[in-house]
Amino acid sequence: MRAGSPQGPPTPRGGRTQEEIRRSNLGALLRHVHLNGPVSRSALAGRMGLNRSTIMALTAELTAAGLVREELPADTRRAGRPSLVVRPESGRVYVLAFDVRVDRLVAARVGLGGVILDRREAVRRRQADADLDDVVGVLAEFGRELRREADPGSVCAGVGAAYCGMIRPADGTVRYGPYMGWVDQAFGDELAAGLGLPVAVGNEAHLGALAEHERGAGVGFDNLVYLHGDVGVGGGIIVGGRLLGGDGGYGCELGHMVVNPYDGRPCMCGSRGCLEAEVGEHALIDAAGRSGELTGREGVRAVVAAAGRGDEAAAEALERIGDWLGIGVANLINLFNPGLVIFGGMLRDVYPGSAEHVRRRVEANVLLISRERVRLRVSALGDDATLIGAAELAFSSLMTSPLEALAHLR
Amino acid sequence: MRAGSPQGPPTPRGGRTQEEIRRSNLGALLRHVHLNGPVSRSALAGRMGLNRSTIMALTAELTAAGLVREELPADTRRAGRPSLVVRPESGRVYVLAFDVRVDRLVAARVGLGGVILDRREAVRRRQADADLDDVVGVLAEFGRELRREADPGSVCAGVGAAYCGMIRPADGTVRYGPYMGWVDQAFGDELAAGLGLPVAVGNEAHLGALAEHERGAGVGFDNLVYLHGDVGVGGGIIVGGRLLGGDGGYGCELGHMVVNPYDGRPCMCGSRGCLEAEVGEHALIDAAGRSGELTGREGVRAVVAAAGRGDEAAAEALERIGDWLGIGVANLINLFNPGLVIFGGMLRDVYPGSAEHVRRRVEANVLLISRERVRLRVSALGDDATLIGAAELAFSSLMTSPLEALAHLR
Repeated sequence: MRAGSPQGPPTPRGGRTQEEIRRSNLGALLRHVHLNGPVSRSALAGRMGLNRSTIMALTAELTAAGLVREELPADTRRAGRPSLVVRPESGRVYVLAFDVRVDRLVAARVGLGGVILDRREAVRRRQADADLDDVVGVLAEFGRELRREADPGSVCAGVGAAYCGMIRPADGTVRYGPYMGWVDQAFGDELAAGLGLPVAVGNEAHLGALAEHERGAGVGFDNLVYLHGDVGVGGGIIVGGRLLGGDGGYGCELGHMVVNPYDGRPCMCGSRGCLEAEVGEHALIDAAGRSGELTGREGVRAVVAAAGRGDEAAAEALERIGDWLGIGVANLINLFNPGLVIFGGMLRDVYPGSAEHVRRRVEANVLLISRERVRLRVSALGDDATLIGAAELAFSSLMTSPLEALAHLR
Repeated sequence: MRAGSPQGPPTPRGGRTQEEIRRSNLGALLRHVHLNGPVSRSALAGRMGLNRSTIMALTAELTAAGLVREELPADTRRAGRPSLVVRPESGRVYVLAFDVRVDRLVAARVGLGGVILDRREAVRRRQADADLDDVVGVLAEFGRELRREADPGSVCAGVGAAYCGMIRPADGTVRYGPYMGWVDQAFGDELAAGLGLPVAVGNEAHLGALAEHERGAGVGFDNLVYLHGDVGVGGGIIVGGRLLGGDGGYGCELGHMVVNPYDGRPCMCGSRGCLEAEVGEHALIDAAGRSGELTGREGVRAVVAAAGRGDEAAAEALERIGDWLGIGVANLINLFNPGLVIFGGMLRDVYPGSAEHVRRRVEANVLLISRERVRLRVSALGDDATLIGAAELAFSSLMTSPLEALAHLR
């Protein structure tokens, strides 16, 4: 379509006040250095479309609040007065990020700029039903430790948690968490109570997609599909620069796309032939004839390593997974016309050995025009993508109005 | 996720001027009455978040430009001074809308408020390769006729065209139009040259989705999936209130989602087992044992009518289509968590007789939480959905800044 979308502009609700504009500019500037690292004042002026005196006033406010610092650039050989470089100040504020994975519980203290300052992990016994109180207990204790050991002058600016299940955005309830046997568990509220702090919760693959989009393989791509493999396969899809949430926040469940309707493997969801049933950890390990041996990421890596050593069953298993994965990816490219598809979680390990079969399916099943520019890549952030996404979720109110958020914390 | 998206606010590029705010408000007000019909000034004030004196000033400007008129409400029995009602003035400006369908060429003159004022149709011979010049020749002649017969005081505010193929948004080139054998045909530019007016072109199912979203079954749904059946099956998907375009504008190709990978019918795209191969017109007519009889919408309706009379082969054909359609719809619900799925084009005829099988698949294959609120409905605008979508595309610059667009036309 040409000449603007027929959607038209959003209904205006009056103009913004100068105060609102200043607040929004402070947030945008802080967010810029938080995501992109040190940048000169003059580059900030160009990228934000503001003049240099406005940038100077904004950085002065953020510096006074201890959120950024300004310094001379390392390279000052060029003629003329150098433009000061603005850096995120990672000691002043931090967030707590939690990641409830199928096989472990992870917690971290993360500073401005996305620096992981400290972390804790507890390995979970798989398959067993998990008790909400036990999980929250471990995480809350990790959180208290991480706060105790933080710099005494620093403050916690937010808490975010990634969970391997379907999350109600409004209150962080786990609506469906099959790997722990959870249905409608008040995870967000309980963790908040355990920490004495508000907590924002998101689906792990949604948050992984945001992290890859903002800091990983997907930087610069406004339309991308992130596939996150474990026992199951989750997804996070960025459409026009924003995460696809859908009506209730439960969108992107690409692992339950049926790819093999009449001959498919049973899926945990009760259906058959779902993408996750055909390409998840169990499918790979079973296809390689290694059921009953290692499970989890170790089991997946053992198959990949065996294929690398010339083990035929392992190589064929990777090809089989690649074929089903290719059908799923082909469907996603036809639907989303993304610039990029990212393979994360255990699919990061699986993809290199199955890429040829994935690409063959993409060539056979995707419309020529929809695939002429698409790229396929593995996750750049690896297993920490979901944790980093949880940290970004925790930072969101600070990035919306930095000084107000900070004042509120004192 | 709670407390705002981690995407943060868009990078501000300075504040908006009063003039920009006024222009945007004029557009929003005109768009409101264009889409919703007559509305009182006080209701407009409430819905737009503006005070009544601002609304009065805006409607005065639009009235002076001949775009709306104000009148006393029909029912003035309530006490107090009645709030004037603002209506779109459909005689002052119109747009031309074109719809290049598989089986016919349609043109219409459409007034403000979405009123089809006049129309022309030419039936196309199916299957034959179509020549760009011939198609443009017929449409341009229709356009000239429609303009000649318009009210002498009225002006054409834009031209939009829907085309049954993949369209490059920037210039309206048909990248791939399999039903006419078109690859990289300069349809937009040629039609613009034939009319002597700029033309915006969109994919028919994208425009059908927009029309249903703005004026049809999808009003009030910010997340919906529209399936448009003919020989093929196209799609238009609204995510967070906006059409999913993807990286190049080629998104929503749900008809080429592979649902039957190893036993599927051949598809025009060169693949097998695509949704459109399993549920399109040919699949239905073949399954009913009626190949070689009627084709097109007539052929589809003949099968539906026969099933209604108790013809077993026809009833089973509808069930078979419903099963494959259900798999496709289930996948779309898992991916998009929409509030609504709309069946348009020939699927509007097919759906009632296959709904039970579609719903059975949705229950079997969609995660409980993703389907707890979704509704399935047929198109409200019927075969005109795509034409109405083309008209909305044509109206978009008028709705963005009404007075400037009008001044430009004089």
